[in-house]
Amino acid sequence: MIIDCHGHYTTAPKALEDWRNRQIAGLKDPASAPRVADLRISDDEIRESIVANQLRLMRERGSDLTIFSPRASFMAHHIGDLQTSLAWASICNELCHRVASLFPDHFIGAAMLPQSPGAPIATSIAELERCVKEYGFVAINLNPDPSGGHWTSPPLGDRYWYPLYEKMVEYGIPAMIHVSTSCNACFHTTGAHYLNADTTAFMQCLTSDLFKDFPDLKFVIPHGGGAVPYHWGRFRGLAQEMKKPPLDESVLDNVYFDTCVYHQPGVNLLAEVIPVRNVLFASEMIGAVRGIDPTTGFHYDDTRRYIDAAPHLTDADRRLIYEGNARRVYPRLDAALKARGK
Amino acid sequence: MIIDCHGHYTTAPKALEDWRNRQIAGLKDPASAPRVADLRISDDEIRESIVANQLRLMRERGSDLTIFSPRASFMAHHIGDLQTSLAWASICNELCHRVASLFPDHFIGAAMLPQSPGAPIATSIAELERCVKEYGFVAINLNPDPSGGHWTSPPLGDRYWYPLYEKMVEYGIPAMIHVSTSCNACFHTTGAHYLNADTTAFMQCLTSDLFKDFPDLKFVIPHGGGAVPYHWGRFRGLAQEMKKPPLDESVLDNVYFDTCVYHQPGVNLLAEVIPVRNVLFASEMIGAVRGIDPTTGFHYDDTRRYIDAAPHLTDADRRLIYEGNARRVYPRLDAALKARGK
Repeated sequence: MIIDCHGHYTTAPKALEDWRNRQIAGLKDPASAPRVADLRISDDEIRESIVANQLRLMRERGSDLTIFSPRASFMAHHIGDLQTSLAWASICNELCHRVASLFPDHFIGAAMLPQSPGAPIATSIAELERCVKEYGFVAINLNPDPSGGHWTSPPLGDRYWYPLYEKMVEYGIPAMIHVSTSCNACFHTTGAHYLNADTTAFMQCLTSDLFKDFPDLKFVIPHGGGAVPYHWGRFRGLAQEMKKPPLDESVLDNVYFDTCVYHQPGVNLLAEVIPVRNVLFASEMIGAVRGIDPTTGFHYDDTRRYIDAAPHLTDADRRLIYEGNARRVYPRLDAALKARGK
Repeated sequence: MIIDCHGHYTTAPKALEDWRNRQIAGLKDPASAPRVADLRISDDEIRESIVANQLRLMRERGSDLTIFSPRASFMAHHIGDLQTSLAWASICNELCHRVASLFPDHFIGAAMLPQSPGAPIATSIAELERCVKEYGFVAINLNPDPSGGHWTSPPLGDRYWYPLYEKMVEYGIPAMIHVSTSCNACFHTTGAHYLNADTTAFMQCLTSDLFKDFPDLKFVIPHGGGAVPYHWGRFRGLAQEMKKPPLDESVLDNVYFDTCVYHQPGVNLLAEVIPVRNVLFASEMIGAVRGIDPTTGFHYDDTRRYIDAAPHLTDADRRLIYEGNARRVYPRLDAALKARGK
């Protein structure tokens, strides 16, 4: 079984984007603000948006189940205020739930949170609970920078985030640490902000005592961990410089890297330097890089090919990366699969 | 000959730091502000700070010449205003000039600029000219984020920077794109901010038409290019998505990566994916990571070992990385070496 731990609903019907645009227009002109009930998307429209896209590619590439969350770049937590994010997160999560309900063998939900710059993180907990209890979601995406590239929130080791961590541990819900659109002109969203956030989040973990306070907390760093595996020696050396224990003792019981690295040498490096138990298969398909690599003739984001070809991996390693690790890191996913006899 | 294109004067005598602390105190209490002439450091003190440190390690590791600039984390352009940075850059550059004058076979200068958030970049040009004409410096360090982690300056493709680029091209001076200390609690300086800036700068180059306007402009991205080589497939795919030409046509005539990657697998990847003509030997020694890697028994930042062992490189490749590329990218360095019969 091949589990892709990183997929977003990037192909949602256009009505969703239209609703969001009306919501944004409504920030200036409240009379034009849409109601939640104004969004109408039929099951057939959802089916069509999935069958022709993610599900088609999953079948072609041989992955079975995707942990599926709202489109990351559309979370845009910097827009509006807490009420804006509450309504938007609720709508986006419900759509992912509908995808998972229509295709229960192929998709299982992960929630975006209704974060808003400056709002206490506790305001995101009700949506987390709703998605876990009502929808059976197995994870969340946590945005370490809801300002969208201005980095005005405290680092992940700060007690600001602790109320959320308590709920995550209580429910057995890991967080993928995933930013959204950059509204800072310095940072290209998918070419800089995403990767920077991955590196930043890892270093925030390394420099904090977060996992002493929450030994069961689990973070997935997407996009192959940003710059971290490539600079693994630097991070090992920095930890040493700070008199911290080795990384595999201080962070690798809690931090995992996905495989969204879009060429063979990158995946080879990831597989060589990061312990296999910390690597989770993912493609972020259909995402930022949709084209075909002219040097291979295959899609850049067809990451399964790279895992299959990585010389440092045994077949047992691949089984962990494809399935075993995900079932360990996402206990509710494991429970849901077992309930279906898988 | 082995040229290290990335060294900072991190071991300057304590009097320098004391002067800086008095300068910072003087921002609140102008009566206590020091004069430039108050800083007294003897040639012997400079010799001692170099012979026991950088020069000792250069001899041990077999590198010959270091392009030497003021300590990056101490540039701290966010402190004070333009006048603060003008005085501080002048002092720091003069010290590097004294190092280069005392050890002309082993050090040649690169300037920090007196950048200050919000100040026009033209205010940095006089110091660049002074360092080139009076000191014989061969490069500059350009800080793309003088705010120190708040990223309030325009991206590098913006016309804001053009007056500086014109001078760089006029003098044949490349810029290492190097940030300084982070004063944003989200970003650890050497574990996140440096690497993020590298990735950010590369993406700013990729998305702009900068090198169409300045075909002779040269940027060196330090720390092995941040996350870029590890995600080379992602960047190739993003360029393709944006209908840009392939990276080797659009940016690799102008952008170079140093080898400050502190473990063998990282350097192997760099050497595998980035064309040899774009890789410049560097160690950033003595810098952020000073310890000995327990898995090898050698210093993390002894990057020559990794280059020597990288399986994708031929001896001819190594000669380019160690010397040939630097002489091409830094024409004033080449001229200075030729003038000495080297």
